[in-house]
Amino acid sequence: MTLSIAALAAEKLDRKTKPQGALGELEILAIRLSDIQQTLEPRASKKRIVIFAADHGVAAEGVSAFPAEVTAQMVQNFLSGGAAISVLSRHGGIELHIADVGVDTVFDEHVKSAPTFFSRSARRGTRNFLVEPAMTAAECEAAMNAGREQVRLAVANGIDLLGIGEMGIGNTTAASALLAALTNFSPQDLAGRGTGVDDAGLRRKITVIEQALKRHHSHAPSADLKSLSARYWLESVGGYEIAAMTGAILETSVCRLPIVIDGFIATAAAAVAFQIDAAAKEVCFFAHLSEEQAHGKVLSFLNVRPVLNLGMRLGEGTGAALAMPVIEAAAKIMCEMSSFDSAGVSERTERTDMAATPSGTEPTQP
Amino acid sequence: MTLSIAALAAEKLDRKTKPQGALGELEILAIRLSDIQQTLEPRASKKRIVIFAADHGVAAEGVSAFPAEVTAQMVQNFLSGGAAISVLSRHGGIELHIADVGVDTVFDEHVKSAPTFFSRSARRGTRNFLVEPAMTAAECEAAMNAGREQVRLAVANGIDLLGIGEMGIGNTTAASALLAALTNFSPQDLAGRGTGVDDAGLRRKITVIEQALKRHHSHAPSADLKSLSARYWLESVGGYEIAAMTGAILETSVCRLPIVIDGFIATAAAAVAFQIDAAAKEVCFFAHLSEEQAHGKVLSFLNVRPVLNLGMRLGEGTGAALAMPVIEAAAKIMCEMSSFDSAGVSERTERTDMAATPSGTEPTQP
Repeated sequence: MTLSIAALAAEKLDRKTKPQGALGELEILAIRLSDIQQTLEPRASKKRIVIFAADHGVAAEGVSAFPAEVTAQMVQNFLSGGAAISVLSRHGGIELHIADVGVDTVFDEHVKSAPTFFSRSARRGTRNFLVEPAMTAAECEAAMNAGREQVRLAVANGIDLLGIGEMGIGNTTAASALLAALTNFSPQDLAGRGTGVDDAGLRRKITVIEQALKRHHSHAPSADLKSLSARYWLESVGGYEIAAMTGAILETSVCRLPIVIDGFIATAAAAVAFQIDAAAKEVCFFAHLSEEQAHGKVLSFLNVRPVLNLGMRLGEGTGAALAMPVIEAAAKIMCEMSSFDSAGVSERTERTDMAATPSGTEPTQP
Repeated sequence: MTLSIAALAAEKLDRKTKPQGALGELEILAIRLSDIQQTLEPRASKKRIVIFAADHGVAAEGVSAFPAEVTAQMVQNFLSGGAAISVLSRHGGIELHIADVGVDTVFDEHVKSAPTFFSRSARRGTRNFLVEPAMTAAECEAAMNAGREQVRLAVANGIDLLGIGEMGIGNTTAASALLAALTNFSPQDLAGRGTGVDDAGLRRKITVIEQALKRHHSHAPSADLKSLSARYWLESVGGYEIAAMTGAILETSVCRLPIVIDGFIATAAAAVAFQIDAAAKEVCFFAHLSEEQAHGKVLSFLNVRPVLNLGMRLGEGTGAALAMPVIEAAAKIMCEMSSFDSAGVSERTERTDMAATPSGTEPTQP
C-alpha cells in the first residue's frame, strides 16, 4: 500500500529534531499544506491577499457605525499604503490586490490605473435586501467570476498561498443574514457590533435581518426552507464581495491552491462555498478568531479551527496577513529542519522499566 | 496635566483609519511597546533571541524522555541552522545567540569560535537537586550575570526586542520544582510531560519534586516557608539556564528593553524575577501558551496573557520566534498607519437618534 502524502509528511516531521508533535498547530498546518500541494516540500513563500470591496443597499437602514462612503475611501487608503492591511501585508511580505466588485462610487483614473487594482464592479452596491433581492443572478455570477479570476491569476503568478479579505460598510449585516439563512443560528445569535454599532444599532440590525429573512422566505421559489440553495440566499441577502470570495474559495478547490480565510465575512463566504462544494474545505485555512461575537459559533459550525486569536475585528484581510507568515513558518519547518540522523542528535529513550521510586535519595517520612 | 506616553499612544491609535479597538491585542501590544520605549514611534524591527543552554543533575532520576547528551547535541544543531528555532528565527528575521551556561560537555573549537556562541558555563550541569542543592550561590550569580550580559550586549547592538528561550534536558522538572516552591500549586499541578515522558516517568517526576522540596525545606536557613527567598529556591532546585533567564529579565527591567518570554521554563524564570523585582513585569511579553500542562496556570498566577496559542511545547525560543513578528506588526501599526484626517476617511456617525424600526419595508405580521 502506498502511503498518502499526508501520512508521509507526518512521518517526515516525526524524524525532525524535536519530540513528536512538539510543534503543535505548526505540524498540523505543515501536513495540511503538504497534502494540498501534494509535496513533501510545501511552499508558502509567495503570498498574496486579495481584498474584495463592495457596498450594501442595506446600509441605508442604519446598521453600521460608519457611513457608506467609507468603503470607497478605504479602497483609496489601501492603495496609498496607509490602511491596517497595507501595513500588515508589507510587514508579512504579502502582495496586496484590491478588487472593486461593487463599490458605490466612480473611482478616478489614478485608482483605476493602479496595477494592483481590479475594476470588476457588478453594480454600484447591492440593492437593499430588506425590500428586494440584494442582487440578480447575473450580478452574483459576475462577482463570483471576479473571485475565480483572482485565483487563476494567483496560480498563473506562482502564488503559493492566497488570502482573502473584504471591505464593505454594512457587510456584517449581509453576512449575518446569510448565515442565519444557512444555519440553525438565529439573527440574534449571529448579529454583532460590526465596526461598533451601539445597542440601538444592534437591535436595528437584528430586526432588519429577521424581516429580510421572512421576506425572502415568502418570496422563495420553494416553500421548503431546506431546499433553498446557498446560491438563492447569496443572491437574496449577500453582497458582491461575499459572492466574489465564494467564487474564489470554490476556484481554489479546483486549482488546489491553499487559501486563507480572514474573518467573519470571509467565513460567511466559506459557509456558502462549502454548501455548494463540501470539498472546498480541504484547501481552506481559517486565519483567526474574530472578536465579532458570532465568529466562534460559525467556525464551530464549520468544524474548523482558527490559527490565531488576537481579538481583532477589522476585516480587510488583517487576520490573514498575520496568519499567513505562521503558515509559511510551518512550510519551512517541513522543508528546512534537520532530522535526528542528519543532525546527529540522540532519539528518545524509553525508561518505563525504571523504578518508579527515585533512587539516591534520603529516606523520607511518609 | 501631561498625559502619559501610554495614554498618548492610545489616542494616536484611536485616530487611525479603523474602528476604535478593532485591532484587539495588536493595539494593546503597540501601547505597551510605546510605554516601555517611551515613544510614540515604537520599534521592534531589530530582533534577537538568546537561547540559554544547560544540563541538570536531576536528569539522572529518569525524569526526561530524552538522554542528557541531547542538550549538547542540540546546541550544535542550533549553530548548524537545522533546529526548529534556527528555521523559525531565520523566518522571522531574528538574530540568534546561544549561551552555554552549564552544558555537560566540552564543546569543540568549531562551536566555541562561532560568533553567536557564548561560553559562559557556570559548571558542567547542576548537581542532582534530589540529593543536594542544584548550585552554589556563586554559580547562580555567574549564570545570572551571563543573562544580564546578553541584555547589555543587545542594548549595545541596538536590538529593539529581545526574546529568551532555553535548552536543557530535565529542565521542566527544575522549573516545576521551582514553581511549586514559589506558588501554592502542588508538584502534581505543575509537573507535565516535558519532551514526552510516559505515565511512569510523570509519576517519577512528581515524586522527585515532592521529595526535593521536602529536603530543601528541611535544610533551609529559615523554618518559615514564606520567608525563603526566590533566590534560595533558584539555587536549590533551579537550573543555570533558568538563573540566566532570571538575570536577563531583571536586567531588561533596568535597561527598559522589551523582552519576550518563550514558554514554560522561561515563565518559571519570570516568576523568580518578579519575586525579586515586581517592576520587571512591565517590560515582559509572554509569547505563547505552551502545551506543557501547567503553563496556563502559571501565566494566570502571574496575571499575564500570552500572544499566541499554537499548542507548542518545544522550548528553544520557538514560541518567541513566532510572537516577535506579531509584536513588530503592532509597532508598525503605531508608526505607519494613516489617520482619518491624513487619509481623508470619514469617521463614525452616531445614529442612536434613528428609529429602531426599519423603514422602507413592507408591513410584517407580528
